[in-house]
Amino acid sequence: MEKQTVGVVGLGNMGTGMARSLLRAGYPVVGYDLRPEARAGLEAAGGRAAASLAEVGRTAQVVLVMVLNYPQVESALFDAGGVLSGLAPGATVIVSSTISPAQTRQLGARLTERQFVYIDAPVSGGPVRAAEGTLTMMVGAPATVFAAHQPLLACLASNLFHCGEVGAGQTAKMCNQLMAGVTFMASAECLALGAAAGMNTRQLFEIVTSGAGDCWMMRNRGVRMLDTYETGSRLDTFAKDLGIVLETADQYHLPLLLATAARQWIMFGIASGYGPLDDAHVIKLLESFTGASVREAAQG
Amino acid sequence: MEKQTVGVVGLGNMGTGMARSLLRAGYPVVGYDLRPEARAGLEAAGGRAAASLAEVGRTAQVVLVMVLNYPQVESALFDAGGVLSGLAPGATVIVSSTISPAQTRQLGARLTERQFVYIDAPVSGGPVRAAEGTLTMMVGAPATVFAAHQPLLACLASNLFHCGEVGAGQTAKMCNQLMAGVTFMASAECLALGAAAGMNTRQLFEIVTSGAGDCWMMRNRGVRMLDTYETGSRLDTFAKDLGIVLETADQYHLPLLLATAARQWIMFGIASGYGPLDDAHVIKLLESFTGASVREAAQG
Repeated sequence: MEKQTVGVVGLGNMGTGMARSLLRAGYPVVGYDLRPEARAGLEAAGGRAAASLAEVGRTAQVVLVMVLNYPQVESALFDAGGVLSGLAPGATVIVSSTISPAQTRQLGARLTERQFVYIDAPVSGGPVRAAEGTLTMMVGAPATVFAAHQPLLACLASNLFHCGEVGAGQTAKMCNQLMAGVTFMASAECLALGAAAGMNTRQLFEIVTSGAGDCWMMRNRGVRMLDTYETGSRLDTFAKDLGIVLETADQYHLPLLLATAARQWIMFGIASGYGPLDDAHVIKLLESFTGASVREAAQG
Repeated sequence: MEKQTVGVVGLGNMGTGMARSLLRAGYPVVGYDLRPEARAGLEAAGGRAAASLAEVGRTAQVVLVMVLNYPQVESALFDAGGVLSGLAPGATVIVSSTISPAQTRQLGARLTERQFVYIDAPVSGGPVRAAEGTLTMMVGAPATVFAAHQPLLACLASNLFHCGEVGAGQTAKMCNQLMAGVTFMASAECLALGAAAGMNTRQLFEIVTSGAGDCWMMRNRGVRMLDTYETGSRLDTFAKDLGIVLETADQYHLPLLLATAARQWIMFGIASGYGPLDDAHVIKLLESFTGASVREAAQG
């Protein structure tokens, strides 16, 4: 059976990595991004760059949307000249951008009404895993839709979870981002306290990751607060994701003291100018209160 | 060379486990606890129960203190009829209870003045690892003192870290407890939000622990919020440990939004009657806001 052509909308680090995984698995990929250099990157990887979103729609049987946020998702699909202006009824739309469960259900209803198949499929794992096809993907879709698209989704995500109906994927992702955002800022608090109290922060990192305080974020982001600050992910992305967490929790009248506090740290960081920078830069905010440098304290 | 007799003060789950590790390594152990059943437990394990703290002092060359908190440490050592009333100058006092870095430095100064050797040696890992001799131990002591006692300490802790002078061990432990307390309560927030939003919380546990939200506390405590609540550790212990974190951070004028919020959750939990219970019971507090049971949601 000939493989379906997959349209990829949004060729950032994540979208490009996912396009590569699809190409490696033999799917023809047609992609679009506003930035010419991103379109050139797709062509270099063996895909085809479309001249417009409508062209992606006209060419693809499945469209994967991996843009920054909900306004971009909505605009790419529904605008005049957007993907849906070219897409044939019966085609599938997969949204992997992180948006809220409520927005997801609305989007699913609008697309189903117009005879498209909708798959709610946020991911976790970063650009490297995107390009390897080893992402974690949390899928919300009817069981028959999930089964029909499982081979394609499995090319993108070696950890593939079917969580329930449309909305359940983003619900899982939101809960994951609560943990990610809180453990990220907890790692910063821990290292800042250690530096202020005169600890060797490299040794502190080793102690914490060997015991009950261990977490993925300390290993992946905390360790970068000791040296380069390079993480490949912007600080302000956490503000968006934790905003979805808090907005959703409000609907259930669930107080979340930690998610709230973590988001306030991020807002302080954005106010201090770190929003567009790699997220580990937020440690500089905490260092500013005491003058103790986590990086210098790592030298021993 | 004949092995030194080690006095163990405080025969709770942790102290008894550590006494067992010392006995297995060939150290004679003499122990004391207010509770007769705890003394009987030591005798059953091959140690000798003393009739008083002073007798522990008279018999031991090294005393390991593993009681609940600072008032108990101070009372066990300095009270009339306490350990020091019997202990010969030149003997070593090791304090493994979690107390603050400031209290540790005071204690070290008082003991050194009276010609005792002081070792600051808090641990992490729980009763099972205490009995196996596989604890993580964070040691504050002069390098020569650390070297002289390394064989004994290594019987207790397979992860043995020399962190610096007296106070540095408790500083490391405090930073670890910041991470532990925050990631513990973050796990509760995550599962409560998932249950409220209609997730299968068993699947949510699998998703979170497979990705960027992973942490030791979710695996060790979060998983118990799905079933038995049995963790072997009291909720109110977190309030004490996070109290040390906040009190110490105040000295450096370091705001800690997450440690503060985590301790407030614990205080809500104590106010709700969960303080003396196994710590995973705190999930019931979060469930009370929404009516959604994390345990029921784990059934699918």
